[in-house]
Amino acid sequence: MPESSLKADPRRIARFLHEIGEVGADPRGGWSRPAFGPEEREAHAVFERWATELGMTPSTDAVGNSFGELAGSTTGPALLVGSHLDTVPRGGGFDGVAGVAAALEAVRLIAESGGLGLPLRTVVFSGEEGARFGTPCIGSRVATDAFTGESLRKLQDREGRSVAECAKEVGLRPADATEAVWPEGSVLAFLELHIEQGRVLEARGRTLGIVDAIAGSTRVELTFSGSADHSGATPMTLRHDALAGASELVIEAERRAALYRTAVATVGDLRVEPGSFTTVPGLARLSLDVRDVDSERQRELAEELLDSASRIAARRGLEVSAVLVSDQSPVVLHKPVREQLARAAQRSDATFCVLPSGATHDTAHVARVAPAGMIFVPSRGGVSHAPEEWSSAEDVARGAEVMAAALRALDEKENA
Amino acid sequence: MPESSLKADPRRIARFLHEIGEVGADPRGGWSRPAFGPEEREAHAVFERWATELGMTPSTDAVGNSFGELAGSTTGPALLVGSHLDTVPRGGGFDGVAGVAAALEAVRLIAESGGLGLPLRTVVFSGEEGARFGTPCIGSRVATDAFTGESLRKLQDREGRSVAECAKEVGLRPADATEAVWPEGSVLAFLELHIEQGRVLEARGRTLGIVDAIAGSTRVELTFSGSADHSGATPMTLRHDALAGASELVIEAERRAALYRTAVATVGDLRVEPGSFTTVPGLARLSLDVRDVDSERQRELAEELLDSASRIAARRGLEVSAVLVSDQSPVVLHKPVREQLARAAQRSDATFCVLPSGATHDTAHVARVAPAGMIFVPSRGGVSHAPEEWSSAEDVARGAEVMAAALRALDEKENA
Repeated sequence: MPESSLKADPRRIARFLHEIGEVGADPRGGWSRPAFGPEEREAHAVFERWATELGMTPSTDAVGNSFGELAGSTTGPALLVGSHLDTVPRGGGFDGVAGVAAALEAVRLIAESGGLGLPLRTVVFSGEEGARFGTPCIGSRVATDAFTGESLRKLQDREGRSVAECAKEVGLRPADATEAVWPEGSVLAFLELHIEQGRVLEARGRTLGIVDAIAGSTRVELTFSGSADHSGATPMTLRHDALAGASELVIEAERRAALYRTAVATVGDLRVEPGSFTTVPGLARLSLDVRDVDSERQRELAEELLDSASRIAARRGLEVSAVLVSDQSPVVLHKPVREQLARAAQRSDATFCVLPSGATHDTAHVARVAPAGMIFVPSRGGVSHAPEEWSSAEDVARGAEVMAAALRALDEKENA
Repeated sequence: MPESSLKADPRRIARFLHEIGEVGADPRGGWSRPAFGPEEREAHAVFERWATELGMTPSTDAVGNSFGELAGSTTGPALLVGSHLDTVPRGGGFDGVAGVAAALEAVRLIAESGGLGLPLRTVVFSGEEGARFGTPCIGSRVATDAFTGESLRKLQDREGRSVAECAKEVGLRPADATEAVWPEGSVLAFLELHIEQGRVLEARGRTLGIVDAIAGSTRVELTFSGSADHSGATPMTLRHDALAGASELVIEAERRAALYRTAVATVGDLRVEPGSFTTVPGLARLSLDVRDVDSERQRELAEELLDSASRIAARRGLEVSAVLVSDQSPVVLHKPVREQLARAAQRSDATFCVLPSGATHDTAHVARVAPAGMIFVPSRGGVSHAPEEWSSAEDVARGAEVMAAALRALDEKENA
């Protein structure tokens, strides 16, 4: 069957987005389908219905990852495609959902043009968003043997309820987490489409992005402490202003990260004590998030900024302390998969560019056990994790076509 | 009677501090005697008892300013000396109290060495601390005709209760506020001793400070707004980071104020929204307090910093808005009074220097209607408005001697 017949239907994409949007609509605006809550399960059920309609066999593993399987003409490792359906509180309608819609549409294109040699599997990972349990990508970490049943008993939400407890309540079997681990060699390649959640594609006027690497992230909490003095009675020369020290670090983080194209450093939160008009700040706590696709530079940049903090503190007569909150390495995605995606994109209507992902995704975890590739579609205004999040169904459809073509090419290469 | 007999007794100072410390001791530490609350009235009653024991006639005006009057050998305008007894929540044991203790001790020294020609009046102003009603020096403003009964009905605490309401509840007559206004020419001069609440005297190794001017204060609330983007997905070049803009202003305020010896600029509070590890701050609100003893420079510096904020915002693609919260002019204290204090200090055991007051005091309001002078005693570590606040009874006693000598000199000059 000629490749030109592989035309995705934006109306089907829009319909899936709409059906998922019926689940967990938050009365305060946006959608709330928290990880391992009943709304997540309900959304997975919608996916299973769609997968079944496409002739796939649905299944759900012990920790809530949902699958649809289309048998191939041969047995062997599967080609896997998918994303997630949970949301942050009052999140948007595209984060994750667009990727599942694209996966289903890619399967439809392939099924309607004769199927593949290898089994084709769709996946919806459970618990991708870290908002509820403080840790993202729980389903994919279990499937790739990075998290155990023990991890699920330890991770808690703000009410002190564990993942295991919540998973059990919605009918899952967290105690059998080991059953959910994928057998070695069972996945030939994984593809995920995701909204960009940034403004790079929009700024460059591209409709598709091919991700070359997913940035790692080093997170540190820094506390500057000085002397909480009366703002009127304390001359500038006698001050030990914790906020002034913290402010220098904010500027320094921005300056140093800007020296590298792919690095980012963010002070996202800053709190001052005592926090009054007439008191020099005695304490300033800040969060520092350093990311890069280059593992060494990520750690170097974080180290440099900690050094800067110490120098700033010493010069100002402040104390500074740092707590490492988390440290995750970057993941370079697999070149053969990226090349198939690039070739497919070149033959499509999409205008594309290669870019790194600053945000983390299930793909980063799958990439540890199987070749993985990822594509981005533009996020309007870069807005994400908010009701205003928006991507075009046309862009998602074009992404589905590119994924379908890449899956076919990967299948042909394997069966050549 | 020879001047050398004017020896103040640190034990009497300590005893007064102790007796006032029995009132409003806060179970969480420190003292809480809020403006126009029952604890303030109770502390004033202690003052009245002490004043009576010294042979003074006690009285309280309609808005709670308490007085003690020692008749002179002649009638005429009075020499006035005093401070306040209210506190910030969980405040210290010396702010205000030391000044009232010193005033009482100065009266004792004068009374025991034959009294004065002119009437000698002690005063304890009500509602000096701005903590409860957002505005300081309420009693002294009424007495000097800057606040009316109407002002007292408008000013509210956080529970929405007005000064008038609270004053009435403790037995005062806020509706008769006009009765509390001092007749023109009724005060020949006013002296106040206060703890420094800063570290200048300690840093210079002096036991006494003579205040030449009380700084004015311009207070502005600034809000920088940018774009709350995903920290991973937004390269440094595409950011509009509200906190980075605010941080530049913090540093700029510090840098510019340091150009002038008496100017200070303080960002005492800064709040970030949404305030998460993984979101570039979309909003940063900060408080800016600019003070100087030079009225023009105070306003110029504030204007310069608002200009800086606009330039920073424009360069970063941020919006910035400013709200003027309050604007009070500096007060230069009266040279003849300062000279008498300096002469008295030179003849005393005190080591002194002349310095401006960055904090505002009742003296600033009295100075609009009568010649006024002010002296500081060292605050250990510069700590104030906290339970750790501490000044030495010896320093307060020396200050009382200097005030007594200055009062005698002012009296002699008037009756010469």
